[in-house]
Amino acid sequence: MTLIVQKFGGTSVGSVERIQQVAQKVKKFRENGIDLVIVLSAMSGETNRLIGLAKQVSNRPNLRELDMMVSTGEQVTIALLCMALEELGIPAKSYTGAQVRIQTDSAHTKARILSIDEHRIKADLKEGKVVVVAGFQGVNEYGDITTLGRGGSDTTGVALAAALKADECQIYTDVDGVYTTDPRVAPKAKRLDKITFEEMLEMASLGSKVLQIRSVEFAGKYNVPLRVLHSFKEGNGTLITIDEEVSVEQPIISGIAFSRDEAKLTIRGVPDTPGVASNILGPISAANIEVDMIIQNISRDGTTDFTFTVSRSDYQSALDILNETAKKISAREVAGNLDIAKVSIVGVGMRSHAGVASRMFEVLAKEGINILMISTSEIKISVLIQEKYLELAVRSLHTAFELDAPEKTLD
Amino acid sequence: MTLIVQKFGGTSVGSVERIQQVAQKVKKFRENGIDLVIVLSAMSGETNRLIGLAKQVSNRPNLRELDMMVSTGEQVTIALLCMALEELGIPAKSYTGAQVRIQTDSAHTKARILSIDEHRIKADLKEGKVVVVAGFQGVNEYGDITTLGRGGSDTTGVALAAALKADECQIYTDVDGVYTTDPRVAPKAKRLDKITFEEMLEMASLGSKVLQIRSVEFAGKYNVPLRVLHSFKEGNGTLITIDEEVSVEQPIISGIAFSRDEAKLTIRGVPDTPGVASNILGPISAANIEVDMIIQNISRDGTTDFTFTVSRSDYQSALDILNETAKKISAREVAGNLDIAKVSIVGVGMRSHAGVASRMFEVLAKEGINILMISTSEIKISVLIQEKYLELAVRSLHTAFELDAPEKTLD
Repeated sequence: MTLIVQKFGGTSVGSVERIQQVAQKVKKFRENGIDLVIVLSAMSGETNRLIGLAKQVSNRPNLRELDMMVSTGEQVTIALLCMALEELGIPAKSYTGAQVRIQTDSAHTKARILSIDEHRIKADLKEGKVVVVAGFQGVNEYGDITTLGRGGSDTTGVALAAALKADECQIYTDVDGVYTTDPRVAPKAKRLDKITFEEMLEMASLGSKVLQIRSVEFAGKYNVPLRVLHSFKEGNGTLITIDEEVSVEQPIISGIAFSRDEAKLTIRGVPDTPGVASNILGPISAANIEVDMIIQNISRDGTTDFTFTVSRSDYQSALDILNETAKKISAREVAGNLDIAKVSIVGVGMRSHAGVASRMFEVLAKEGINILMISTSEIKISVLIQEKYLELAVRSLHTAFELDAPEKTLD
Repeated sequence: MTLIVQKFGGTSVGSVERIQQVAQKVKKFRENGIDLVIVLSAMSGETNRLIGLAKQVSNRPNLRELDMMVSTGEQVTIALLCMALEELGIPAKSYTGAQVRIQTDSAHTKARILSIDEHRIKADLKEGKVVVVAGFQGVNEYGDITTLGRGGSDTTGVALAAALKADECQIYTDVDGVYTTDPRVAPKAKRLDKITFEEMLEMASLGSKVLQIRSVEFAGKYNVPLRVLHSFKEGNGTLITIDEEVSVEQPIISGIAFSRDEAKLTIRGVPDTPGVASNILGPISAANIEVDMIIQNISRDGTTDFTFTVSRSDYQSALDILNETAKKISAREVAGNLDIAKVSIVGVGMRSHAGVASRMFEVLAKEGINILMISTSEIKISVLIQEKYLELAVRSLHTAFELDAPEKTLD
């Protein structure tokens, strides 16, 4: 018997009509003899409405109480879907996170799942019921309701699929899959049939916001095949799965990610003594600012230059801290730059192909795009460039690495 | 240490501002060193909104799922009140019915409370916290959420007060107490300082819809002093308590209840054989129709007439059944009447005073009001009259039994 966990997001259950459409979809799967566990988000807008109410009462609402309140959104949709399924003659049963013992830690509003008790669900499935579970929520050791943070319903889906050893976890969204890059930037972007967890993580963390990163990590860790599909359009979506043996046909590069949320900071004329990097970056980390790319120049005349990037929202704080540091360590000057962007090529194919980086640099050079910084990992090469070149860079790389969709012909 | 359970209804928590007002009220009690357990309803309109959603999906929604959904209304208000209390510097903690183990049977949408685990609440009270509990809901033996039916929050309040052995259970509403009769009918109606459980039950079941009957029964059974007060006006409200020794000063009659929701059915010329009453009323009860007043005339010529009342919504079904019965038992004819009303005088003072009934009949006779039927209990005398005389009857009785408020003088 095939068991699939399906997760529908807020827009997919945003109205009674949408919920009825989801019920119709579920019915088709049931008619094909597939066992189903459905995970739902709250109706789109509902979580924000509830948080809005809380904000009217308190600027810093008690987080336990916020979770108590916000968790009601999914409780409504799961009940409505069960009613809609029964209307179609399909027995169904809903569970809150607490009822199905999605045990979490006590970090209210951003809790992590510790364990799931799958017994009730398994018993219901055995009785031929569709089980509908509230996403985004769990319960801590004291019986208090917790929530997993924005996008947490994806994580609920994956965690349930792992606990139930489901054949697949399907995430229904408003896109029909994962693309080689953002189609708004590169119109020739195409949907990927398959992508590895690692690639997906690199794509997601670089701005392709299809799936919550944590859910991809989770799926990779427990090897749960994850599929991204469109809620109401037909299609196979994109399967995210483990890194199988690399075939000759496999493209070297799976996709191109990019991010405009970048800011660059440079401190010049730093006396080059041991511990200089930690002297500079220590205070930045201490302020909970994440540093992405880092370059330390080769020392000249006993001083060095040090450059790193942070996200734009952290730019001003980082600059202030760096100015303080500059005084302390007698550096010459501090400079910052916001007109930059990061472009990355991602692909497990890189592992078995040499010369991918130089090919990337060549493509950019040919377009006259200057590379400001470079960072590499096993399956990713990122470059920092001036923001005005971003679209040009993405499109050139997309074509150069043979990712372009075939030209559409008119039938 | 005084412990009070306070219940606030839907209009009292109908907006963020109202919830903040409730928080201010709670603060005053805390400043007087009183321990508090607060029971809340959903924001007014919210339960109906949720039921409306369910009705869009299904004409007969699954009741377990309906409870799952409808119970979210209180979950929102309890969290908001806790946030509002913390804003005022008052530590507070909210619980759903399931979390505080308000154990019920499995009769979804009209469940009955079986037991309450008061340990968590007591521990929180000991820590100086205000405990805020979701009214109207509980959990069955399977961990499914149940609801207690409309007005069930009153019952939650009383049940908690009983379990915690609270000094008083205060029900905050949009009236400032229990009145001798409906002030809209008798402008001289006055607020009662005190009334017994038994009297309140007779008043409530006859149409003074201040409190849910079940909660009064519950309070009486466990001897929980119950007080009805206005949410936002000052005043002592009405205390509902046990029947203390009757003092000489005590009025004979505490109040006058009435109901327009009455229909009268008569079957004439019934052959007077043993079992005639059960032949007539058996099929009515079998159809779940409740019969209120009953008269069987003295037999004449071997036949008798039989009259009874039902609520107006059951009139047509009862009439149909009675016509069937008339054929079967060869009765002469069936007649019905909807233009009637019931007026009752209620008071424990009746027990020690003779002649109350005849005084009532005298008052009505003097006004030319014909009595159609009479029924009596130990603390109540009810008469059925033509509906057009209802107001006149209530006002005359109100004056005759010395219930009128003293004339207001202009200061």
